[in-house]
Amino acid sequence: PALLHDLNEPLIEHAEGQLFLTETFKIILEEVLCKGTDVKEKVCEWKEPEELAVLLDLELRDTGEPQGKLLKRVKDVAKYSIKTSHPRFFNQLFAGVDYHSMAGRFLTEALNTNLYTYEIAPVFVLVEAEVLRGMHRLVGWTEGDGIFCPGGSISNMYAMNLARYQLFPEIKSRGLWGLPRLTIFTSAESHYSVKKGAALLGIGTDHVILVKVDDGGRMIPEDLEEKIKLAKSEGSVPFLVSCTSGTTVKGAFDPLDHIANLCEKYMLWMHVDAAWGGSVLFSSKHRHLMKGVDRANSVAWNPHKMLVAGLQCSALLLRDTTNLLKRCHSASATYLFQQDKFYDVNLDTGDKSVQCSRKVDCLKLWLMWKAVGSAGLEARVDKAFIHARYLVEQMKKREGFHLLGEPEFVNVCFWYIPPSLRGKEENADYQEQLSKVAPLIKERMMKEGTMMVGYQPQENRVNFFRVVAFSPLISQKDMDFFLNEIERLGKNM
Amino acid sequence: PALLHDLNEPLIEHAEGQLFLTETFKIILEEVLCKGTDVKEKVCEWKEPEELAVLLDLELRDTGEPQGKLLKRVKDVAKYSIKTSHPRFFNQLFAGVDYHSMAGRFLTEALNTNLYTYEIAPVFVLVEAEVLRGMHRLVGWTEGDGIFCPGGSISNMYAMNLARYQLFPEIKSRGLWGLPRLTIFTSAESHYSVKKGAALLGIGTDHVILVKVDDGGRMIPEDLEEKIKLAKSEGSVPFLVSCTSGTTVKGAFDPLDHIANLCEKYMLWMHVDAAWGGSVLFSSKHRHLMKGVDRANSVAWNPHKMLVAGLQCSALLLRDTTNLLKRCHSASATYLFQQDKFYDVNLDTGDKSVQCSRKVDCLKLWLMWKAVGSAGLEARVDKAFIHARYLVEQMKKREGFHLLGEPEFVNVCFWYIPPSLRGKEENADYQEQLSKVAPLIKERMMKEGTMMVGYQPQENRVNFFRVVAFSPLISQKDMDFFLNEIERLGKNM
Ligand SMILES: Cc1ncc(COP(=O)(O)O)c(C=O)c1O
Ligand SMILES: Cc1ncc(COP(=O)(O)O)c(C=O)c1O
Repeated sequence: PALLHDLNEPLIEHAEGQLFLTETFKIILEEVLCKGTDVKEKVCEWKEPEELAVLLDLELRDTGEPQGKLLKRVKDVAKYSIKTSHPRFFNQLFAGVDYHSMAGRFLTEALNTNLYTYEIAPVFVLVEAEVLRGMHRLVGWTEGDGIFCPGGSISNMYAMNLARYQLFPEIKSRGLWGLPRLTIFTSAESHYSVKKGAALLGIGTDHVILVKVDDGGRMIPEDLEEKIKLAKSEGSVPFLVSCTSGTTVKGAFDPLDHIANLCEKYMLWMHVDAAWGGSVLFSSKHRHLMKGVDRANSVAWNPHKMLVAGLQCSALLLRDTTNLLKRCHSASATYLFQQDKFYDVNLDTGDKSVQCSRKVDCLKLWLMWKAVGSAGLEARVDKAFIHARYLVEQMKKREGFHLLGEPEFVNVCFWYIPPSLRGKEENADYQEQLSKVAPLIKERMMKEGTMMVGYQPQENRVNFFRVVAFSPLISQKDMDFFLNEIERLGKNM
Repeated sequence: PALLHDLNEPLIEHAEGQLFLTETFKIILEEVLCKGTDVKEKVCEWKEPEELAVLLDLELRDTGEPQGKLLKRVKDVAKYSIKTSHPRFFNQLFAGVDYHSMAGRFLTEALNTNLYTYEIAPVFVLVEAEVLRGMHRLVGWTEGDGIFCPGGSISNMYAMNLARYQLFPEIKSRGLWGLPRLTIFTSAESHYSVKKGAALLGIGTDHVILVKVDDGGRMIPEDLEEKIKLAKSEGSVPFLVSCTSGTTVKGAFDPLDHIANLCEKYMLWMHVDAAWGGSVLFSSKHRHLMKGVDRANSVAWNPHKMLVAGLQCSALLLRDTTNLLKRCHSASATYLFQQDKFYDVNLDTGDKSVQCSRKVDCLKLWLMWKAVGSAGLEARVDKAFIHARYLVEQMKKREGFHLLGEPEFVNVCFWYIPPSLRGKEENADYQEQLSKVAPLIKERMMKEGTMMVGYQPQENRVNFFRVVAFSPLISQKDMDFFLNEIERLGKNM
């Protein structure tokens, strides 16, 4: 192209580009943030994949397209995407929108840098340290270390790697060969990332020992102790207990203090996967759920979930003050982490990570926290508990809603029993019929676009719904809507 | 707070929030995108960390802050952050800005969803597949698999994990115990993520065998073969060669075809780390540098580097068509990947990842690709080569610039010899004096804020600069400025 030959002409046209960005911003405001949070609008505009592919005209071609056509694409992407900020999106452990966090996210994108050296991320190095300090304080530590990771699963893996490195530092260079079999303990209802991590780290999923849970989904410490003893007697080396504060499905909190006693007794690394539940630490009313967390060696906590900081935002917090994180992960690349820089190279935190490029995930949280204060975040947490409690009380009053149990947290798990199945509990195919209810209600709601909520089977329990109502955008009316809508969609089946 | 008790009031005020976001957008346009790309403005506003901490007023408090104060914070963050889009930012393997990509990034942030199920990311599941298809085609494959990862380091780790799983599928459940020692081969100048990955995966950095490179920094296949034989004779099991297309410092391209022969001969997984160099595949003129890439088993390629797609954007591409990625990584969580959904659950791609939450990194690339077409991306690549060539020619003409060698790619590595050191090559302390030049020039340029470029030592070579000029925003004038500025800053030392 001609452009190529004019070396004094950049390939980017700023004015045109900025206009496009401004037009996109307007579409975002209108379609995603206004309509996308309006209860009179749909949560989703369901299309079959084949149809959607055609609508989006996905193909990548040799030549570019005019701005008008591209803006149409921006609109289409917005139109056919799920409105996860919508007050009736109850499908995942993230939902809602916080505008200050969103502002922090746009600013992060525009500044486009990596969080590895002070040199290229001076503001973010300091902001990350401050946010980690704030989180440490909530855990109950006056010092420590930490890092933001691309998601709670990776945070959990980091904890595993650190625990094993602390025990056998030679693993870093020599690998697992010649070492005894290592075992990890976690509850039967913990997040699947514990197993994924064990597989990736070469430990193997068979060496993740699942500890029994009580009716509420909490790890049973007596069973943990038995399993630790058993593993030891079989020649394995237990090295880590991964507790959960807020399990994914039921929202259960493992008894941390009790488990901490065992970790001390058997000298095991205590990790707390608080990816989902960690935010209760903001609430003076509910933080007792995590009593004992200050005795943990590490805590994973995802502000992108309950706090609405936006995806991705996940911190791994460490009690360690011996630079374990860096010792375990560093490669000391001289092209990035030169030691003869003119500033304090301890500010170059990148070598604490197994990543090289690392997205800036802290600014949005810092700005949101500044905007509403710890008190504002506490209010969000407390309100979520109130909404959940309201749902529970209503379900008890309404026919057809059958709770799995009394929730500890904001996850409300229930079966909806359609009129045709009521009183048929003794029928041989009752469970099978019941298992079909949630998928069918889900299909109906998505095709109408009125709301979204997730379901799953668990152990011997057939498909049940899990509703989580924590978005700061929701009101009690949305709770009523939810219940009515389940009834409406589940009436004829 | 009162708010808590009114359950019908959401905690978020849309009008106020949207106003804040709009004001932030204006600041982004003005400070980051206009001033931040203006050669008359500074690349950085250097502050010592202690001073910057005070300026930013980092502390997180109990109460929130008024909007005006928060907007001031947005401005301060922009002000004290590095302007990585500035035409004089040559410090990293990312730089510049593309407005369509930026629009895609804002839209991604606003839509705030995860790339794990079709249910909550219908558009992005399809877009990711299409972008991967486009990249596959450029590699020379008509089919295959792939996934976007949080950075090239993680993409490289995935390749390791897949290669080892393919060889020993039982590792996933049983771990590395009882297996022979596994070894990885990569060049001495490959990226440090290969070692980080080996450490994390339990393989150990000692089992990453570094193959010798030639003067240009390219892996020497003869040395590779010798080292493979040696490892085998010592009872290790070689399983992976990680080649590099575009090394981090010198921009060297390993001879892929030659290495592919050896991988076939010894039945090793061939991975190509093309995080930096992959973009040459767009260029009919330069894609020969990667001849043989279609014979690889996997390729890591970061469009967030040369293509200016924005951080993070890294794809792992696989030739495999047997669903290896999913088999290796899946945990089949029933709360997310229910098998009784009403649509084709093969569209739920999340279980291919070791992550759970996974950021949407594909939309920005798709939108940019649509906007400029493959031809536009080719022009960017070709122009970068022209700029680099120009720099090389100029350096040869100017006194004081000493090239490390003839670059193959757009990395230009050189020493600047200040007048006081010229002709002193025989002095005993010459190398020591020379090693101090780059850090001092760097300090001066950052304190003045005129530009940024990186330096490093490598093996027995003392600190030298690496300049990479690929941003679509730069013109030949910026190249001249670069050379003049190095001379100006290096004059008195
Ligand atoms: C308890 C728990 N831990 C960890 C995770 C994983 O976090 P992420 O999705 O950020 O990887 C989740 C995700 O839902 C979770 O619920
Ligand atoms: C050759 C090479 N491979 C891999 C990486 C790592 O990519 P990322 O920074 O996205 O982790 C880099 C980063 O510069 C690189 O230059």
